[in-house]
Order: sequence, then C-alpha cells, then structure tokens
Amino acid sequence: MNGYRDLRVALLGGGSVGAQVARLLLEQGDELAARVGARLQLIGIAVRDLDAKRDVELPRELLTTDAEQLVLGADIVIELMGGIEPARTLILRAIEGGADVVTANKALIASHGAELAEAAEQVGAQLSYEAAVAGAIPIIRPLRESLAGDHITRVMGIVNGSTNYILDRMDRFGDSAEDAMRVASELGYLEADPTLDVEGYDAAQKATILASIAFHSEVPVEAVYREGITEVTLSQIEAAAQAGYVIKLLAIAERVQTADGSFGVSARVYPALISRMHPLAAVHGGKNAVFVEAEAAGELMFYGAGAGGVETASAVLGDVVSAARRHVVGGPGIPGSSHADLPILPIGEVLTRYQIMLRVHDETGALAAIAGLLAERGVGAASVVQSMPEDLDLAAVDAAEGTATLVIGTHTAREADLAATVQALRESSVVAEVTSVLRLEGNQ
Amino acid sequence: MNGYRDLRVALLGGGSVGAQVARLLLEQGDELAARVGARLQLIGIAVRDLDAKRDVELPRELLTTDAEQLVLGADIVIELMGGIEPARTLILRAIEGGADVVTANKALIASHGAELAEAAEQVGAQLSYEAAVAGAIPIIRPLRESLAGDHITRVMGIVNGSTNYILDRMDRFGDSAEDAMRVASELGYLEADPTLDVEGYDAAQKATILASIAFHSEVPVEAVYREGITEVTLSQIEAAAQAGYVIKLLAIAERVQTADGSFGVSARVYPALISRMHPLAAVHGGKNAVFVEAEAAGELMFYGAGAGGVETASAVLGDVVSAARRHVVGGPGIPGSSHADLPILPIGEVLTRYQIMLRVHDETGALAAIAGLLAERGVGAASVVQSMPEDLDLAAVDAAEGTATLVIGTHTAREADLAATVQALRESSVVAEVTSVLRLEGNQ
Repeated sequence: MNGYRDLRVALLGGGSVGAQVARLLLEQGDELAARVGARLQLIGIAVRDLDAKRDVELPRELLTTDAEQLVLGADIVIELMGGIEPARTLILRAIEGGADVVTANKALIASHGAELAEAAEQVGAQLSYEAAVAGAIPIIRPLRESLAGDHITRVMGIVNGSTNYILDRMDRFGDSAEDAMRVASELGYLEADPTLDVEGYDAAQKATILASIAFHSEVPVEAVYREGITEVTLSQIEAAAQAGYVIKLLAIAERVQTADGSFGVSARVYPALISRMHPLAAVHGGKNAVFVEAEAAGELMFYGAGAGGVETASAVLGDVVSAARRHVVGGPGIPGSSHADLPILPIGEVLTRYQIMLRVHDETGALAAIAGLLAERGVGAASVVQSMPEDLDLAAVDAAEGTATLVIGTHTAREADLAATVQALRESSVVAEVTSVLRLEGNQ
Repeated sequence: MNGYRDLRVALLGGGSVGAQVARLLLEQGDELAARVGARLQLIGIAVRDLDAKRDVELPRELLTTDAEQLVLGADIVIELMGGIEPARTLILRAIEGGADVVTANKALIASHGAELAEAAEQVGAQLSYEAAVAGAIPIIRPLRESLAGDHITRVMGIVNGSTNYILDRMDRFGDSAEDAMRVASELGYLEADPTLDVEGYDAAQKATILASIAFHSEVPVEAVYREGITEVTLSQIEAAAQAGYVIKLLAIAERVQTADGSFGVSARVYPALISRMHPLAAVHGGKNAVFVEAEAAGELMFYGAGAGGVETASAVLGDVVSAARRHVVGGPGIPGSSHADLPILPIGEVLTRYQIMLRVHDETGALAAIAGLLAERGVGAASVVQSMPEDLDLAAVDAAEGTATLVIGTHTAREADLAATVQALRESSVVAEVTSVLRLEGNQ
C-alpha cells in the first residue's frame, strides 16, 4: 500500500498501556507510515486471557496466548507485560532474532538492564525504554542524546505520582497522612498493596535507571538508599510551609567527588525539603518531573504525566517510531551507555544538608552544648531559629513544659556526620526530644 | 590515536557560544571520541577579527577569517555567526559539500529553515538546530522524536529570558516596568536595542520554529501575531496576583479546528494571564520553558536556561555528537518535517479567553447593558467581579467618582469577537474606561 514496505510489530501485553498502544498503531497506520517510511503492521498481541475485559476493545483475530511464537519473525517487539519473567526471556529471544525491542518495564530494566543492553549491542539491535521512567515524559532520550556532549552532575526526580499526590494533598489541603492515603487509594493512585509506592521501592527502581544512564555506570537497585513517605507528618509539612519549603519524595542520582578526588555515584530516595521557589515545588498532584543539573547546560527540568495508559503509550510509540526509522534507513539506534563504571557510594559518603527540629530544656548553656555537639562532628549550623515566629500556641506549650523548640538548618556535610549528630542530640541531656529530621535538597 | 578515525569539524563564529563550543571540543576530546566512536578534530574557527577579545582564549593557529575555505572539506560545520548572510550561503555550501550542519541561528532558521532543510534532505545531510530555541533546553529533539507517535495540539513557551526577567521582577518585587527594564539592562539581560526582546520579535522567531516542527508545516515569521510587553503595567500585574494569576509573555503555536472542521495552525506571541498553579507560572528570572500538550502524552514541560554561552554550547554539542554518530555508523539523522502544510490562521480565528477590567458609571441598568454587549457578540461571561475585594482604596476612589470597577473573565470565544466586544465596551455610554485587556491562557 502506497509502496511502503511492512515492518512486523509484535505486542506483548494487553493491559492499559498495551491496549492504547494497539489502538494508536491501528488508528494512525497511514500517518505513522508517512512519518516512518514503512507500514507498522501489528502482527499480534500476546495476552494472558483472551476474554479479559479491557478499556479498549482489541481485534480478536490479533490476540494470542503464545507470546514465544509471536516474537519470532517480528521486526519490532513491544514488551508491556511487566514483571521479570517471562518478559526477560521473551526480550532476549526477540533480540537474538534480530528484532528491536521497546519496553516500559522498569522493574526489568532496573534489575536486568545491563544484561539486555549487552545482548542488544552484540547483535546490533536497539533496546529502548523511554516509558520505563516518568511515563510520558521524554527523559531517557534527552539524557542520552541531547546531553551527550555535556557532563551531568545530578538528577533529582519526582518519579512516583502516588506519593506526590499524597504529599501534595497534605501540603495544599491540610489532609492528614491517613486521609491523603485514603483519597489517593479511592482515586486509583495506589495499588492494592501500596508498599511499592509509599516505601519508595518504585522510585528506587527509577533512580537506578536514571543513575545508570546519567553516569554511564551500572547502579544495582540494591545499592539505592531508600526511605519512603510513611514517616512524614502533617506537622512537618506545615512547619516546612511556614519556612518556605515543601516536602517531596525525591529520587536522586548524583556524581560525587570523594575525599581522594575520585568520582563515585550516589543513588538515593527519600522525602526532602525543597524551596518553594524551586521548579520541583510546582509539581502538583500525580505529576512527575525530573530536574537535571549538567556542567554546561546548567539546570533543566522535564515535567509531565508519570503514569496512565494513553500517556505512557505516547512514549512507547516514540520509541517504536525511532526503531522503525532505523529499520528503514539503517544506522545507529539510541546509543548504549559507554560504561564509565563509577563506583557506587554508600549513603554515608554523600554530602547533604539536614533540617533538625528539636525541643530543648530551657536551661543556661543548652544552646552552647548543642553548638558543641554539631562542631565536634564537623557540622556547621547555617541557621538556628528558636520556635516558629507564627507558631504562638506551640511556644506557649513549650514554656509550660520548660522547653524551647529549635529548628537547626545545617551547612552541607557528610551524611554519616549528620546522622551521628542527630544521634548525639537524641542522647544529650539538654535535648528533650528530636521531633523532626529532614534532608534539604536543591541549591536554593 | 586509539584507532579512532577523525571527523573534521569546522566552527563558524567565535562569540560567547562559539568560544565555549571550541573549549568543550578541545577539552573533552578523549571523552567525546569514546562516546562517538570517532575523534572530533576541530580544523578551524572562522572569526571576523583575529585579535578580538574573548571570554575564552582560542588557539591562535585555529583562527581564520576565511569561512568559505574552512567549510570545504569539513564533515560537520557548526554555524554560530548569527544573522542571515553570510551564514545562509555558508551553510548551503557546507550541505552541498556533504557536511552535516549544526546551527543555533534562530533568525536564519525562522526565515530560511525550509530552504535549508530541503537542501539537506536532497543530499542526505543532517541539519540540526536544538540551540536555536530555548538555549540549553532539549525541545526540538523531543518534539521531533519522542512525540513522533503522538499528535501535538499546543505548544506554549516562555522563550525570551529578558522579558521573563522583567515581568518576574515586577511580579515578585513590585518593580515598575521602567525599574525592571533598567535592572534587566544593567544585568545584561537586554541588548543595546531592546526592541527585539520587549516587542516580542525574538519570541515570534521561536514561535515560527516551534510551530513548524510541532505541526509539520511552514509557518513564516510574518504570519505570527505579535504583541510585546511594553503595555504591561505594574497595576495589571498586581491585580493579576490578587486574582491568582501571573502575566507571562507566551509564544503559542496551536492546532486549531476551524468552523468547517478542517485544521489550521495559529502562531502568536503576547503577554497573557496564566494561573499561579500552572507549571509555567513557576518559571522565574531569565529562565525559559516550553509547555507542550499532546493528544496521548497529555501535558509536558521542558524547563531550563534559554541563553548563555556555555549553556547554549551544551545543546550545540548534543547536536554535534548526534551528527558525528551518524557519520560513524551511517543512517538517518534527525528526520525532517513531513510537511502536513496546514494553513496558517489569522489571529481573529483563534479561540481564547479575555480578562477585561473596566470602570463603569454607577447607574441603573449598567450591568445589563454590558451583559447585552457581550451576548450580542457571542461572548459569554465566565465571571464578573465588582472591584477587587482586597482593593479598598480603589473602591473608595471609585465611589467618589461615581464609578465601579468590574473585572469580566470571558468564556472561550473567537478572538475577533472578543476584540469587537472590547471595542463596543470602549464606545458604550455606561463605560467610563476600559482599563486593562489581557488574554488568559492554560486550562486552569
């Protein structure tokens, strides 16, 4: 038709993303053919259950339960099944057969990305996974291609929409953590088991992928330091708001210079304070964003939908069109990572800042004792605020108990020293209670 | 060296961007060779004046004033001279010689982009210009490649840092327009002749490029409707802030469905109100951002530095690495636009919303007369606010003069009908004065 050759496309998975990808491939056939220079012929959709109920109705004659058979003879395989197996084996088989592979499978890329990339490189196939991090947002391609002549120094992402929705509700509507969780669950932002989201496991997988690409190094997901949002309280969020901050769950991948001058990579996930003037502070609801710092480019941010069937399908199709063009004209796909293989640094080696809130017994020398505790561990105080100016009720209660509330913002210091400082504060006789410890991120 | 072949790179222009590109090419030679698979050999830098003072010192032996000679025999030509001629002729000569061309020249791409793209396509050369719009921000590549399987419906950009700096100062610090202009000028945000920036000419060139790429159509810069920021007053900005809006100079490229159901393209530049909750509202100072709406991907935003020598050099080098990889492995470059060639719509056909502020004589039937004026022209009022609640002083003055201040937010309507409505309000006997007319953009 129109003189175009056919490219055979196999789709594995008929869930919410898969069904949208199938719909777009079928509906936009002519237009995609004009853009690619070849017709993308959907040869089959591998599903687990032929009769399952779907958001989008799929042509019955394309459905099959035999995924292994389907990948044979495909030019492009789109893997949207999720999970490690059988996705991994099917992708390896597709690559061996010379097919290009597009996947949105973050768990698989986080755990087996290097193995799959190597297999693809050996046969000259293209493996792409734009949709595996931050859904619809083009982030993998900009990191790999647009910044190919630059040095990325840090990537900070809001990459989990569910937890951002919860924290945003608490910040904007004053919901308690429980109420915000309940609403998020009712609106379908949370899985039946919310642990993957709220404990930061999902964000950690994405941190692995971002760190690997940004720093050309293998960063196993087990090496990602991880804290979730389950300890974040409404009063922390309110105190943050009063001080001009907002609390966000950040996935951070950073190039760190160690004491001996060599470089390493840190990958970590935790809730942190960022200034309300920081672009990440304006990421509301279930949206995602990835903030990138590079030596030459400076600060960049990529913002958009982090999930959703049709949104994620857009990113998948972008990869499919790229793979298809390569089939038509030949030549390189998205280049693989060049394996600088920087060492992965433990969280203790990372430089960060703490905001520590504590109640102190109101006695002579208390402040001097605390200042001494910090100084002994090489931690400088950038700011010390006694109580919150607006928070008169709290000050009154404090006075009755004979304690004062201090908020200490530290200078940048080694995480291990900061953690030791907090421990020493907890054990100090002048401290009644350490009420809140949060990290502070962003250069503002 | 290392068995890499050489790619001969010619640089045209030794200004702030050119000098940084030269520095990065020379300093990062080994690393770039590893990423590309070939050594990028800088064969010369064409400058106007060999002895000019530069931010970065350039190796004297590479400097030449003979740009024509330099482009012959180059594999990749980087054009950073600016202006139409001789840049255009040199680029055409480079393409004829089979070289790939990277340029940051927005004026040239806005006026001769189609001619250059066609010349490149004929010989299979690559023409790329990531740095021509929004400096360091990867926007051209995401629009062309990541969204290749999607339909873009609207692009809204803050693409001129100088005007954003001025408006942001007025909004955040309460500067008058004159004061903000003066500070911007002192800090080097403005050219000696600020007209290109403040009258929106620079933004209009970028709107042309964005519209052409987003909608695969040729959009001449003369077809871009343009208003600058010279009419924006501090009182408009303060009133906007009270109502939850901020005023930004937006470059908008939009796919519009006309009355007969066919599609056209609108490209326009004007200051507009957007909600403070909109991601574009968080773009402060001299930063740029491009907000993209696509059918499947939904809302995306790309944020970063819109200018600056080293920042822009990052985008140039990304294009150079891409061109170089193509030389090494063969195959397609950034694909050209496929020329859907949608018609360009005049501003009158565009659908938008107005916020109209006016003083009305306080007499019976005034509101009914105004409502009638709107209804006759098919313009619906989404909101009518009498005076500003917080603005007690203004209300008092109004009372003394026997007038009331009304703020009318319209529903979406044809621009021509909205403009006619404003004209009718100006001529109405119940209206003392139309004090402010601003468009309202964004879906919030």
